[in-house]
Amino acid sequence: MKVVITGGTGMLGRRLALRILARPELVGSDGTPQEISKLVLFDAFPPVEPPPDDPRVAVVTGDICDRAVVEDLIDADTDAVFHFAAVVSGGAEADFDLGYGVNLDGGRNVLEAARKTGLCPKIIFTSSLAVYGGERSVDDATALTPQTSYGTQKAIGELMVNDYTRKGFVDGRTLRLPTIVIRPGRPNAAASGFASSILREPLQGDPVTNPVDPETRMLILSPRRAVQAFIDVHNADGGTLGMNRSVMMNGISPKIGEMLAALRDYAGDGVADRVRAVPDALVQQIVDSWPWYADGARARALGMEPDASVAEIIDTFVNEELDGEFVS
Amino acid sequence: MKVVITGGTGMLGRRLALRILARPELVGSDGTPQEISKLVLFDAFPPVEPPPDDPRVAVVTGDICDRAVVEDLIDADTDAVFHFAAVVSGGAEADFDLGYGVNLDGGRNVLEAARKTGLCPKIIFTSSLAVYGGERSVDDATALTPQTSYGTQKAIGELMVNDYTRKGFVDGRTLRLPTIVIRPGRPNAAASGFASSILREPLQGDPVTNPVDPETRMLILSPRRAVQAFIDVHNADGGTLGMNRSVMMNGISPKIGEMLAALRDYAGDGVADRVRAVPDALVQQIVDSWPWYADGARARALGMEPDASVAEIIDTFVNEELDGEFVS
Repeated sequence: MKVVITGGTGMLGRRLALRILARPELVGSDGTPQEISKLVLFDAFPPVEPPPDDPRVAVVTGDICDRAVVEDLIDADTDAVFHFAAVVSGGAEADFDLGYGVNLDGGRNVLEAARKTGLCPKIIFTSSLAVYGGERSVDDATALTPQTSYGTQKAIGELMVNDYTRKGFVDGRTLRLPTIVIRPGRPNAAASGFASSILREPLQGDPVTNPVDPETRMLILSPRRAVQAFIDVHNADGGTLGMNRSVMMNGISPKIGEMLAALRDYAGDGVADRVRAVPDALVQQIVDSWPWYADGARARALGMEPDASVAEIIDTFVNEELDGEFVS
Repeated sequence: MKVVITGGTGMLGRRLALRILARPELVGSDGTPQEISKLVLFDAFPPVEPPPDDPRVAVVTGDICDRAVVEDLIDADTDAVFHFAAVVSGGAEADFDLGYGVNLDGGRNVLEAARKTGLCPKIIFTSSLAVYGGERSVDDATALTPQTSYGTQKAIGELMVNDYTRKGFVDGRTLRLPTIVIRPGRPNAAASGFASSILREPLQGDPVTNPVDPETRMLILSPRRAVQAFIDVHNADGGTLGMNRSVMMNGISPKIGEMLAALRDYAGDGVADRVRAVPDALVQQIVDSWPWYADGARARALGMEPDASVAEIIDTFVNEELDGEFVS
């Protein structure tokens, strides 16, 4: 099968690529796992981390806002598109036009290009718990009341995925993600980025600031569990999903203070003492609009599991990203 | 004050225009009712009914999908825009691209043009109970799960109105309308159009078919009450509305059979016998996705009242549109 990943050289895109190249996991129309014959990694920027060294991989750099570029990308051979390309929350809040361009028009370009093939390919759309707003606890039936431009654009994308699927133009599925922690690499413009930084930087020997109140909770999910969730949503039976194509992924909900305590337990005082509290009202305000608790019955029914603990998340990061060694 | 009405020569647009020209009702920034100094009626088509004969009125014909046209329309003198222009439900279902063009891109053009003035004008956006789907009863907190393209596009518009308002680009307000009954004039492409036709045509001496089961309920509101609701939403205190700018209007919920019985009571057997049952599965399917009962606490708190009865709706139509005389 041919798979396209937009945002394919980014953190989740690259990890999904490595995973599905390694062994057949995405099911085809007959329900059995298929070998990848071609994997296109599309991104706005040239790769920072090296792309997978595999003859089936092609890296394409281009603008998701350009309809013609996206129509070239998603051709009649394409079986599935994982759509990760996005301007993240802080970025969409800072640059209103860029956010609507990439997140709304870019998503629409993906749906339109897929529709144009006439072959109803699978589209796996990435959404976020930022589609909610002002609710402490959310479930699959909670109204989407986003309080950021990013959340608004993701909610709009979910609505379009449902409508294009209902019309038979695509076989769309949306995965609504908690905050991904621990993101490897450098900080990005996501308002949620600090939740990774406060664990990642100290483990790598660097000082870091924590911008939010330690009593603030965050719904978090590791990159490894997120990649698994994308595979699960791709493989889910469409009839079971029904007209609502959105699956809200569950996460764990530690307080920021509990995340820092888990870091101290795991890595010791020398590491944990690299975190310094520097409250940032803007970040706090954005994070306060996100839910603390998610009860996703649809995800559970699909067998999609969150992480067991913050300790597990830290240990996975250290083993997968730091070759098992943190800077004590 | 200068007011722009898109879809301004249509049924609701024209009636709102006549109403606000007749006496000052729209409040200005100081909270007092203002005289209309200029009223622009924008529409895709030349007027069918004559526009109001008033020197303050300008009729402009153009394409809401053309950003430049909309930027000319909404200038720095514009205090308020009532955005009625839309492809209705049956039309948006039949022509997917036209629906997204007019209902999504057209709405976005209105918001962008208003934003470009830098003066945060009022935008009153028209939505519909078609934003819901599959719920028998809805209230202000019910999730928007549209099951038509029209409902999807209206839900997207509501999200954008909230976001543009939050950013301070416009002072947006959305009125979510039940089905308007009795629409005067000829049938339009709305899937709900039959609900007017089954009363209107017999009163005017014409035979008509009823496409849905008499046990089907519809949430309905008269044109007169709808015009009042638009004025009420325009005049509502923005601080009271908060971040959620959508106001779900209440209606009454007769069964189709009860509507026909009310027609028989009001106008006699000769009129009521002009209705013939001819079930239409497509219309039934669309209508079945709409809610039967609405409990809009926000609308009630703003003092917005639905009609008292089907009899009142019929009587108002006969008096306002038929000069008090129906064809018995």
